[in-house]
Amino acid sequence: MNNRREAASRLTTLLLSTLLLTTLLLAIGGVAYAAEMPGISLAALANVQKYERAIQIMAMLLVGFGFLMVFVRRYGRSALTATYLLVSVALPLYFLKESYFGLAKSAGTIDTLILAEFAAASLLICAGAVLGRLKMHQYLLLGILFVPFYALNEWIVLNGGLGLITGTVVDTGGSIVIHAFGAIFGLGVAASMTTQQEYETAIESDETSDRYSLLGSMVLWVFWPSFCAALVAPADVPKTAVNVILALCGSTLATYFASVRLRGKVSAADMANAALAGGVAIGSTCAFAAPGIAFAIGILAGVLSTFGFAVIQAKLTSWTKRVDTCGVFYLHGLPGLLGGIAAMAVVSGISPGAQLAGILVTILIAAIAGLISGKVIALLGRRSVPYVDSEEFEGAV
Amino acid sequence: MNNRREAASRLTTLLLSTLLLTTLLLAIGGVAYAAEMPGISLAALANVQKYERAIQIMAMLLVGFGFLMVFVRRYGRSALTATYLLVSVALPLYFLKESYFGLAKSAGTIDTLILAEFAAASLLICAGAVLGRLKMHQYLLLGILFVPFYALNEWIVLNGGLGLITGTVVDTGGSIVIHAFGAIFGLGVAASMTTQQEYETAIESDETSDRYSLLGSMVLWVFWPSFCAALVAPADVPKTAVNVILALCGSTLATYFASVRLRGKVSAADMANAALAGGVAIGSTCAFAAPGIAFAIGILAGVLSTFGFAVIQAKLTSWTKRVDTCGVFYLHGLPGLLGGIAAMAVVSGISPGAQLAGILVTILIAAIAGLISGKVIALLGRRSVPYVDSEEFEGAV
Amino acid sequence: MNNRREAASRLTTLLLSTLLLTTLLLAIGGVAYAAEMPGISLAALANVQKYERAIQIMAMLLVGFGFLMVFVRRYGRSALTATYLLVSVALPLYFLKESYFGLAKSAGTIDTLILAEFAAASLLICAGAVLGRLKMHQYLLLGILFVPFYALNEWIVLNGGLGLITGTVVDTGGSIVIHAFGAIFGLGVAASMTTQQEYETAIESDETSDRYSLLGSMVLWVFWPSFCAALVAPADVPKTAVNVILALCGSTLATYFASVRLRGKVSAADMANAALAGGVAIGSTCAFAAPGIAFAIGILAGVLSTFGFAVIQAKLTSWTKRVDTCGVFYLHGLPGLLGGIAAMAVVSGISPGAQLAGILVTILIAAIAGLISGKVIALLGRRSVPYVDSEEFEGAV
Repeated sequence: MNNRREAASRLTTLLLSTLLLTTLLLAIGGVAYAAEMPGISLAALANVQKYERAIQIMAMLLVGFGFLMVFVRRYGRSALTATYLLVSVALPLYFLKESYFGLAKSAGTIDTLILAEFAAASLLICAGAVLGRLKMHQYLLLGILFVPFYALNEWIVLNGGLGLITGTVVDTGGSIVIHAFGAIFGLGVAASMTTQQEYETAIESDETSDRYSLLGSMVLWVFWPSFCAALVAPADVPKTAVNVILALCGSTLATYFASVRLRGKVSAADMANAALAGGVAIGSTCAFAAPGIAFAIGILAGVLSTFGFAVIQAKLTSWTKRVDTCGVFYLHGLPGLLGGIAAMAVVSGISPGAQLAGILVTILIAAIAGLISGKVIALLGRRSVPYVDSEEFEGAV
Repeated sequence: MNNRREAASRLTTLLLSTLLLTTLLLAIGGVAYAAEMPGISLAALANVQKYERAIQIMAMLLVGFGFLMVFVRRYGRSALTATYLLVSVALPLYFLKESYFGLAKSAGTIDTLILAEFAAASLLICAGAVLGRLKMHQYLLLGILFVPFYALNEWIVLNGGLGLITGTVVDTGGSIVIHAFGAIFGLGVAASMTTQQEYETAIESDETSDRYSLLGSMVLWVFWPSFCAALVAPADVPKTAVNVILALCGSTLATYFASVRLRGKVSAADMANAALAGGVAIGSTCAFAAPGIAFAIGILAGVLSTFGFAVIQAKLTSWTKRVDTCGVFYLHGLPGLLGGIAAMAVVSGISPGAQLAGILVTILIAAIAGLISGKVIALLGRRSVPYVDSEEFEGAV
Repeated sequence: MNNRREAASRLTTLLLSTLLLTTLLLAIGGVAYAAEMPGISLAALANVQKYERAIQIMAMLLVGFGFLMVFVRRYGRSALTATYLLVSVALPLYFLKESYFGLAKSAGTIDTLILAEFAAASLLICAGAVLGRLKMHQYLLLGILFVPFYALNEWIVLNGGLGLITGTVVDTGGSIVIHAFGAIFGLGVAASMTTQQEYETAIESDETSDRYSLLGSMVLWVFWPSFCAALVAPADVPKTAVNVILALCGSTLATYFASVRLRGKVSAADMANAALAGGVAIGSTCAFAAPGIAFAIGILAGVLSTFGFAVIQAKLTSWTKRVDTCGVFYLHGLPGLLGGIAAMAVVSGISPGAQLAGILVTILIAAIAGLISGKVIALLGRRSVPYVDSEEFEGAV
C-alpha cells in the first residue's frame, strides 16, 4: 500500500514536471504564430470560417464526449473531469509536436488547432474503453503516451511518413486515423490492464445519467458535419456537410429499428451511441459520396454498431474477460473500419492498395501502442473500486 | 391484443420498407449535389456562413426541442429518442421532395438543408402536442405523414403554388408556415386521438426534468437569431438578428411578470416556454421591424403565451377533453398567428390580403391534415400507459 | 411583513414601468439600425463572422453562466430564471445607452450587440456573488443599477471618458473591465446586504447539480475564444483564439493538480470554476501573447483561483461574515486582476501607467457602485430563506 502511494506520488511529480517542461518548451521553443496578412481578405475570412468549425469541434470534445460518458451513474464528476484533463493535455502536446516536427508543412495556426483537436478526439475515444478504471492522473499519463503514437500513425498514413504507404489514403473525416485508431488503442490498453474485480463490477446507468448521455450524443450529432468538413475547401463544405447529416439520419433510424429487433425494447444507450455510427463511418468518404450512398453507409453503420452493442459486446467481454467501458469498439472501431473499407468502393480513382495498407498500419500501431501503454499505466497504481467518484472526489458518495 | 401486435409488426415492416425505399430513391433517383465553383469566392464563403447557421438550427432541433420536451418526468429517454427519430425522418424526406418536386428553384445544397430543417422544426412542434401518447414508431409515421402536407402548405403560401395566393406572404422566420402550421397540425392530431385515460393522467415534472427543460429552452433562445436569419442576405443578418434578440428579451421579461401576476408564484414551465414566444412572433417581421417594435412584439407575445399556459390551457383542456402535452398552441400557435398578423401593421408595402390568405390557408391545411393524420396513426395501435419510458425502453421504471 | 409586501409590490410596479418606459424609448427614441451596403461584400461577410461569435457569446451567457450557477442544489430553477432575466434586462439597456450616448462611435449593429453582451457577462458575474439571496425582481433591479455603472467604467477606461486616463488600456477580452469589474461590484453588493442568517446557511450541491455545473463550465470553456476574439480583426482571430485555448488548457491542468494538493481529493467545484481562470486572465493579453506565455498565464491563473477557492474563501468568509455565493472573487476577481497586471509585462509598447490607472479606476468604481447598489436593493425586501426555489417557484420543494 505504501509503495503504491509512493509510486503515485512520484507519478504526480513526473506529471507536474512534464507540465512545467511543456510550458518551458512552449515558452522558449520557437513556437510562434504564423504571420497573417493584415486587413480583410478572402483568405482571412476563409480562415475564420475554419476557426468556427474548430470551436464546434471543441464543443464535441468537451460537452459531446464528456456528457456521452456520464452514462456511468456514479462516475459523472470523474468522467467530466477526465474529459477536461484529456483535452487539456492533448492540445498543447500536439501543438508542441507540430512546432518541432511539423517542419515543412506548417499549415497555419487554425489548421494546427484542428489537427490537435482530431488527436484529442481520438484520445477521448481511447479513454472511453477504460473509463472508470483509471485514476485521474493516469488519464493524463494516457494522454502523454497516446499523442506521440497518434502523431506517428497520422504521419505514416496521411503524410507518407517513412515512405511506408505509396498513394493517397482517403480519410477526410478520420474514420480510420481518428476513430478506428482511438478505439483499437483503447482496446489495447483495456487488454493490458483490466482486473478480475473490474470485470465483475457492473456498470450501471440511471434515468438522469442516461439523459446526460443523450445530451452528449446530440451535441456530437449536431456538430459532426463540422468535424468532417473542418479542413475541407469552402466550396466542398455543403456537400460534405449534407453527406454527414444524411449518414447520421440513416444510422439514427437504423439504430432504433435494430435496437427493437435485437433487444425487444429500445435501449437508450444504443440510441446515444449507435445513432452516431453513421458519422464515424462516413468519415472517409464524406467529401466524395453521393447523397444516397451516404445515407446507405449510415444505415449499415447503425445496424453494425447496434448489433455490436446488443450482441457482440456481451460475448466478447465474457470471452476475453476484458471490459470496454463505453463500447468504443462498437461505436468507433467497427464503423470506422467499415468507413475506411467503404471508401474503396465509393471514391473514384482511389488506390485500394494504399487504403488497405493505411487501415492495416493503423490497426497495428494502435494495438501495439495500446498494449504497451496499458502495461505502463498499470505499473503506476490501481483504483481500489472502479466506476465511482468517491475514491477521488470530495463530497461524492 | 394479438391483433394490435400484428398491426404493430406490420407497421414496423411498413416503416422499414419506407426507409429502404427512401434509400433506394435517394441512391438511384438523380439526387445530386449542386455543382460548386472551385476556389475561395465571396459566394462560397457566404454559403459556408449559411452552413454555420444551418448547424446552429440543428442544435435547436436536437438539443433545443429535445431537452425542452424532457420536462415530462418519466419520459425523458422517450422524448429524446423521439426527437432523434423525427429529425432523422424529416430531413431525408424533405431532401427527396426537393429533388423530385423542387425542380426549377433548386436553391443550392445548403438552402435545401435549411428548408429541410424548417420542416423538421415544424414537425417537432407538432409532435409536442401529442408527446408521451405515441409509440416510438408512431412518431416516425407522424413524420412521414407530416412532411408532404408541410411541403404542400409551404409551396402554396410562400411559392405561389396552385396560384391560390397572389402577392407575397411575409414570413422570413416562419411564424406562420413553421410555428402556427406545426402547432395547429399537432392540435389536429391530438383532437383525433386523445383517449379518456390520457386525459385523466397527470403530466408531471420534477426538479431535474425542469432543469433539463430550461436547458432546451436556453439552447433555442441562443440560436433563434440564426433560425430567423438563416436564409437572409449577409447585409441583413445584423438587423434581423438583433430584432430577434430584442423580441426574446421582451418575451422573457414579460413572461416573468405575467407568470407572477397570473399564478402568484413563478412557473419554471412558463419561463422555459413562454420566454421563447418573442422568437416565434418576430418570425414574420424580423427582417423589417425597427428595434422598438421588435421589443414590443416580444413583450406582447410573452404576455399572450403566458396567459395561454396559465389561464387558457386548463380551461381548453377540460372543455375539449383533448390534451396538448407541451402546450404548443400557447407557445407556437397563438404567438405565431400574432406574428403573422403583426406583419400587416409593421412591414411597409405588404399586401394585407395575401398575408391574411396565407394565414388562413395555413390554418386550414394544418387542421385538416392533422385530423386525418391523427386518425391514421390511431388506427395503428395505442400505448397502454402514457408518459412513461418503461413501456418501450430497457431498464426504465 | 405587510410593509415588506407593499414595498415588494411597489417595486414590481416600478420595474414594470421601467420595462414599459424602455419599450417606449426604444420605440420612439431614434434607435435605428446602421445602414448596411447591399450585396455580398468582404465587409458584410466579416460582419456576419462577428455575428457568429456574438451568438457563441450568447450561449456562454445563458447556457454557460446559467448552468454553472445550478451547482446550488435546490436553487436550479431560480438560477436559470435569474440568468434569463439578467440577460434580458442588460441587453436592451445597453442598446439604449449606446443609442443615446454612443453618439460618435456608433460601431455598427453587431459591435453594439457584442458590447451589450460583455455588459451582460459582467452583470452575471456580479450576480454570482449574491446568488440565492435576492428575490427574482431584485435581480432585475440589480441589472438596472449595474449597467449604467458598467458603461461609465467602460467609457472611462477604454474610451478615454472624462479624460481620466491618458494612453491605451489593453484589455481585449475584458480581464479588467468585464471580469474584475463584475466580481468586485458583486462583492460590494454582498458586503452591503449579507445577513447573519444567510451567513449561517450552508450552500449545498449534489451529484446532479454538480454535473449541471460542469456542463455550464464546459460551455464557457468551449466558446471562450469567441468571447476574447469577438471584436478582433479577422487576421488576428487565429492567434487570439489559440492563446485563449492554451491558457484554458493551462488553468485546467493546474486546477486539477492544485485541487488535489490543497484538498487531498479533487473538488468538482474547483474543476467547474478554476479551470476557467485561464480564460479570465488571458483576456487582457490574448491578442498579443506568445503561445508559451499564454499557457503560463493560464497555469498561474488556475493555481491562483484554486488557491482562492480552497484556502482563501473559507477564511475571508468567516472573517468578513459576508458570503460570495459562487466565489466570483476567486474565479473572476483575482484572475482578472492578474490578467490586467500581466499585460504590463507581456504587451510590448504598453503604457504601464495607463494600465495601472485602468485597473485602479475599475476597482474603485466597482466597489463603490456595488456598495451603493447593495444598500438600494436591501431596502426593497428580503427573502425569508436563502438558496431555495420554493419561496418563489411553483411546485418546488
